[in-house]
Amino acid sequence: MTIPQRLLDFAADLTAIRRDLHEHPELGFQEVRTAGIVAANLRAWGIEVHEGIGKTGVVGLLQGNRPGRRIGLRADMDALPIHEQTNLPFASKTPGVMHACGHDAHTTMLLGAARYLAETRDFAGTAVFIFQPAEEGLGGGRAMIADGLFRRFPCDEIYGMHNSPYHPPGVIGVKPGPAMAGANFFDITITAKGCHAAMPESGIDAVVIAASLVAQIQTIAARNVAPTSPVVVSVTQIHAGAAYNVIPEVATLAGTVRYFDRAVADLVTQRMQALCDGVARGYGVSVRLDMRNVFDVLENDPALSDAMIEQARALVGDKAALKTDLVMGSEDFADMLQVVPGAYCTVGHAGNIPVHNPGFVLDDDVLPLGAALMARMVQARGAA
Amino acid sequence: MTIPQRLLDFAADLTAIRRDLHEHPELGFQEVRTAGIVAANLRAWGIEVHEGIGKTGVVGLLQGNRPGRRIGLRADMDALPIHEQTNLPFASKTPGVMHACGHDAHTTMLLGAARYLAETRDFAGTAVFIFQPAEEGLGGGRAMIADGLFRRFPCDEIYGMHNSPYHPPGVIGVKPGPAMAGANFFDITITAKGCHAAMPESGIDAVVIAASLVAQIQTIAARNVAPTSPVVVSVTQIHAGAAYNVIPEVATLAGTVRYFDRAVADLVTQRMQALCDGVARGYGVSVRLDMRNVFDVLENDPALSDAMIEQARALVGDKAALKTDLVMGSEDFADMLQVVPGAYCTVGHAGNIPVHNPGFVLDDDVLPLGAALMARMVQARGAA
Amino acid sequence: MTIPQRLLDFAADLTAIRRDLHEHPELGFQEVRTAGIVAANLRAWGIEVHEGIGKTGVVGLLQGNRPGRRIGLRADMDALPIHEQTNLPFASKTPGVMHACGHDAHTTMLLGAARYLAETRDFAGTAVFIFQPAEEGLGGGRAMIADGLFRRFPCDEIYGMHNSPYHPPGVIGVKPGPAMAGANFFDITITAKGCHAAMPESGIDAVVIAASLVAQIQTIAARNVAPTSPVVVSVTQIHAGAAYNVIPEVATLAGTVRYFDRAVADLVTQRMQALCDGVARGYGVSVRLDMRNVFDVLENDPALSDAMIEQARALVGDKAALKTDLVMGSEDFADMLQVVPGAYCTVGHAGNIPVHNPGFVLDDDVLPLGAALMARMVQARGAA
Amino acid sequence: MTIPQRLLDFAADLTAIRRDLHEHPELGFQEVRTAGIVAANLRAWGIEVHEGIGKTGVVGLLQGNRPGRRIGLRADMDALPIHEQTNLPFASKTPGVMHACGHDAHTTMLLGAARYLAETRDFAGTAVFIFQPAEEGLGGGRAMIADGLFRRFPCDEIYGMHNSPYHPPGVIGVKPGPAMAGANFFDITITAKGCHAAMPESGIDAVVIAASLVAQIQTIAARNVAPTSPVVVSVTQIHAGAAYNVIPEVATLAGTVRYFDRAVADLVTQRMQALCDGVARGYGVSVRLDMRNVFDVLENDPALSDAMIEQARALVGDKAALKTDLVMGSEDFADMLQVVPGAYCTVGHAGNIPVHNPGFVLDDDVLPLGAALMARMVQARGAA
Repeated sequence: MTIPQRLLDFAADLTAIRRDLHEHPELGFQEVRTAGIVAANLRAWGIEVHEGIGKTGVVGLLQGNRPGRRIGLRADMDALPIHEQTNLPFASKTPGVMHACGHDAHTTMLLGAARYLAETRDFAGTAVFIFQPAEEGLGGGRAMIADGLFRRFPCDEIYGMHNSPYHPPGVIGVKPGPAMAGANFFDITITAKGCHAAMPESGIDAVVIAASLVAQIQTIAARNVAPTSPVVVSVTQIHAGAAYNVIPEVATLAGTVRYFDRAVADLVTQRMQALCDGVARGYGVSVRLDMRNVFDVLENDPALSDAMIEQARALVGDKAALKTDLVMGSEDFADMLQVVPGAYCTVGHAGNIPVHNPGFVLDDDVLPLGAALMARMVQARGAA
Repeated sequence: MTIPQRLLDFAADLTAIRRDLHEHPELGFQEVRTAGIVAANLRAWGIEVHEGIGKTGVVGLLQGNRPGRRIGLRADMDALPIHEQTNLPFASKTPGVMHACGHDAHTTMLLGAARYLAETRDFAGTAVFIFQPAEEGLGGGRAMIADGLFRRFPCDEIYGMHNSPYHPPGVIGVKPGPAMAGANFFDITITAKGCHAAMPESGIDAVVIAASLVAQIQTIAARNVAPTSPVVVSVTQIHAGAAYNVIPEVATLAGTVRYFDRAVADLVTQRMQALCDGVARGYGVSVRLDMRNVFDVLENDPALSDAMIEQARALVGDKAALKTDLVMGSEDFADMLQVVPGAYCTVGHAGNIPVHNPGFVLDDDVLPLGAALMARMVQARGAA
Repeated sequence: MTIPQRLLDFAADLTAIRRDLHEHPELGFQEVRTAGIVAANLRAWGIEVHEGIGKTGVVGLLQGNRPGRRIGLRADMDALPIHEQTNLPFASKTPGVMHACGHDAHTTMLLGAARYLAETRDFAGTAVFIFQPAEEGLGGGRAMIADGLFRRFPCDEIYGMHNSPYHPPGVIGVKPGPAMAGANFFDITITAKGCHAAMPESGIDAVVIAASLVAQIQTIAARNVAPTSPVVVSVTQIHAGAAYNVIPEVATLAGTVRYFDRAVADLVTQRMQALCDGVARGYGVSVRLDMRNVFDVLENDPALSDAMIEQARALVGDKAALKTDLVMGSEDFADMLQVVPGAYCTVGHAGNIPVHNPGFVLDDDVLPLGAALMARMVQARGAA
Repeated sequence: MTIPQRLLDFAADLTAIRRDLHEHPELGFQEVRTAGIVAANLRAWGIEVHEGIGKTGVVGLLQGNRPGRRIGLRADMDALPIHEQTNLPFASKTPGVMHACGHDAHTTMLLGAARYLAETRDFAGTAVFIFQPAEEGLGGGRAMIADGLFRRFPCDEIYGMHNSPYHPPGVIGVKPGPAMAGANFFDITITAKGCHAAMPESGIDAVVIAASLVAQIQTIAARNVAPTSPVVVSVTQIHAGAAYNVIPEVATLAGTVRYFDRAVADLVTQRMQALCDGVARGYGVSVRLDMRNVFDVLENDPALSDAMIEQARALVGDKAALKTDLVMGSEDFADMLQVVPGAYCTVGHAGNIPVHNPGFVLDDDVLPLGAALMARMVQARGAA
């Protein structure tokens, strides 16, 4: 690898920042402490800071030592409602909240790129550092755009990245074209008839209906969507009941649908509605489905994807800079890519626990690499 | 009906007490306000009060105007973790807590009996008024007994009652012998493998497993227990997940088993364990079942059941005083009946919403009737 | 036991007859060989024989040596569509057909009673031996009645019996009043959309729908019927598909409902219809339910039940002649008991495999006992 | 289109042949009548015929008017165990058997090509006409190869085709490289405990277990296989029970798995085995899974795919000759392509009912087109 020595010199600082963020995770649009740390660091390095863009978003602006184009770099800052189950000395101190997707690292990498560029100024044009809130399904990207992000801080191109426990350390992957899935979120509310648990015949059991619905929903991916059209239907939440001796009146389900083809998303909605109507009819209850789009399909610009792979090759070598396959994960960076062309990559690391798992870990060695790649994109594309 | 006029004269006071209790429901072992009101009223009527029996339990002692036996009367005071959905002007002011089983009325009826007996003193022996906490599965009865209830306040006989939306107003029912079911409570914890909701193949879906288990548990009552042996297996709680895009690591189920035959309870436990082991094997996860006994089968003393029916007949007439069938509901009065012989009855009222339903209502007209029956038991049995 | 020696003297003949019938089982209304053997034996013993009553039914008439009343004794002759899996030397030679309910023994017992009574003539009145076809749900009893059974051969009382692997050898049980369940049979036809098995998205999978329906039907007994009201809902047949690579167009289910209360039977029908409508709605298919009554609740005459117990006591002693509990099994003897008063008993034997199991076995020692009881009923009641 | 006039001149004969075959469908390895018609026609046109290759397979050999290479053309002859539900005047006369996949048309098209080439002899080399039996999962292709097909009748290249109701009439599609899925077939036998349907507690219900297993198997495609890796798991057969009042001892399931990656096939097998073990554990029964490979992934030779597209273009124009996507259907032509390089195409027609549906129809207009394409492949490639 060819990470600049100057950047490696402050790698320990990056590790310290990331571990501090990890220990103090904040949910979407609540990243007050995180945004404060970001802003303070950027200012300390002489970068112009704008706070409160899209609620808790932060933007930093840095001029290079010569004229050029405006290159946006984006990282996300929010954590997940997962209770951390690692034994890390810097494990989350907030019960039920965890950086289980590595956004602490993303924020740190972008801070690393900012510091390196600020210390060297060796680039043309303007670097626009975008620290976005609420990537995990709450629409932080859309919120920043709606708050004037690209109107106030125009960018010619934008780049983002995500850590990957699914690739070996040091491997950088870019998927030109459609790269990450569109995502809907859904809620289902079953209103049955509560009663004493000893007299089920006097009520209608919402738990039994919810369970049947979960089972039936599995048939959508298994039976209704063509196997060659990638789709995911995940029921991720199920809640009913608060007492041992009360059959609850209401059960709720929630989850997500992933797709690359809007017609498939529509088919899934239609099947879920039919299955909800079916159990409503079968059990004589009310079942309400609320389905809404949250992420668009993420489309990498083909030419800028190549540009990103080119920089990755220069950094990690030809063999470790890959064109990758599409993935079912979603990203609200997709929203930004609909406004400004750019590309999004993954950076492999030594942790091999899936993201969103309570045992997720991330190797700090990946921090300088991510920072270096981001910095290179500004250096390469500011003068393009 | 032959409710004493003296008792009817303060019926409005009983309604006021019951509505106040209804407006301020308290969960099991937290009946601090309720117990305070009980104690204050008893004292005001010149009754000797003992508080803090079995945490929040209250006992009142009252001597009749002549020597006789010691007759216990028992009411329960706790509310349920149900969010009230009535439009009553005196609906619960505590979100998520409701007197959905009418214990507010039971407490009030026993207060009514106490006041009537205190004002008249027209009975032999001693009335022991037992206001118990935590009847709804938390073992308030056992707690009072363990705290010396019958050692400190010996009773020759005990009587209790429950309101019934399943019988017409004014109908009193007693089931001699086995009358109410034994109850186990259970918890099931499924520990699967959390992951990103877009990559189900990287984890193991606890929601899908929980749903399958709920469906399979239905087969126990439907297939494994002889139809002539009454049994209930209710899964009343199911909880998993806190985010739209995270497949949760853990799902929990909880519920209750009702039975009249301990061998049936054992069979249910054995089948649930096998089904838990089965999904554990099928999905490669850990599934833990915790099953525990909470209520014993409630056994009414045959002779004292007849005595109670006799008093009921005197009060509501022959046609409205019934021998009833066994019910699947449970009562921790069963624990008291294992120590002191007695009987337990139901008193019908105009509300016809099942107990434990968020819309449960109770007609205040039932209050003087219940109070009169309780008072009669002391009058009749104190001299027996 | 006090089985007459004269009857025991030809016990080996009974064993031979029963084993021959067992080896050559015949399905309902196809009992041509069986009926022939019955008729030939009756004739050989000097009994007046009438054949072809209700297709393959046989009636024998025998006068006692003095005037008296007309006592009917009934046995059933048909076998089941079960493939025998015993290693008996006299196991069924007809693949897929088996005397798995012991009707071979019932027929033999009644032949034994007929021979004993014919040889002794020691009874008042007339014995009417009724050998009925098609008891296993095909309505052989109704067919005989419709064919003039009781019009042509009037009976004052009738008695029947069933072997029981659920009671010890020699134990005779009678349940006065409602004794055996009413039974409905049902068929469900799911018409979905067949397609190539590799392209499930181009069809609608009838197998998946059938499986969901079976699971949902379990909730009827588990959730919708009061646990104190005995009910069974058994799906006993499921059929779909004939090729590995074709998703079938149609799936069929069939089974039976057992009940003691017609309102419960109606509730089950209503719930099954709703569940069928529910999956029809959920999957966009046609689902047809056909539910029909096959057996009525079997009601033993209380006084004649006592009379039967009295004879059983004389035969096996007080301790082995029991009042038993109701059972979920059905009997089309129920139809005969709606026309003529009588009683039905069970006779325990050493085999302890459930009836209708492919491994069902029956100890021949029970044959003389059953024959003796039947004979006693004629002797006792003909003169009553 | 540029179908030769000479071929169009006998189009009515092709329609007649196809309708006759359609009216008399024969299952795999039973194509005696069909093979006889094929052989008789080939002989009538002066083609050398070899019968009985792979049981009922037929091979025809025809020399062109000049030396060249040996080009194999293959069609399949077998029908499916589906009961035809069309109103066609030439609908199947064999109940339960139907040409629901259009092999009658494939056979006819290849006969058409043979007749055209025989009448014109205008090609270099040798045409090898391969009429294979038992394509529908019975291994007719493997059987012919094992019987010496390519040893006795060597081919330099081979071509095949399938009609497609999924493409417009006249559209020809080829997928270079992996084109059709590999297929496993499976059988599952659940051996539970039969009993009387009224006493489910005395047995173990195989139907309930089978239903649960079908539901759980849906989770394999929905949860265990990456959505980007095409897979199908279809349970196409479920059978249990033969009586209304007997809970059956045994239930059987069968079906197919489709995949493009052997590791996915292995994962499916492993998950199915685990789910079978899980219900075995959960219900205390024996569950046996038999999984076997039937079709390999069909791999079209890239260069010969291009050659086939080139001929299709000449025939139907550039716009109607397409590179198509992979499909989940399987073909035992895959086995032949593992021995001899070649390509396989689809030919669209006006019927738009899915194959393997009882209402499948096929427009006879497609017959000359298919024949012409096959003939062109010999003309083009014999001289290559």
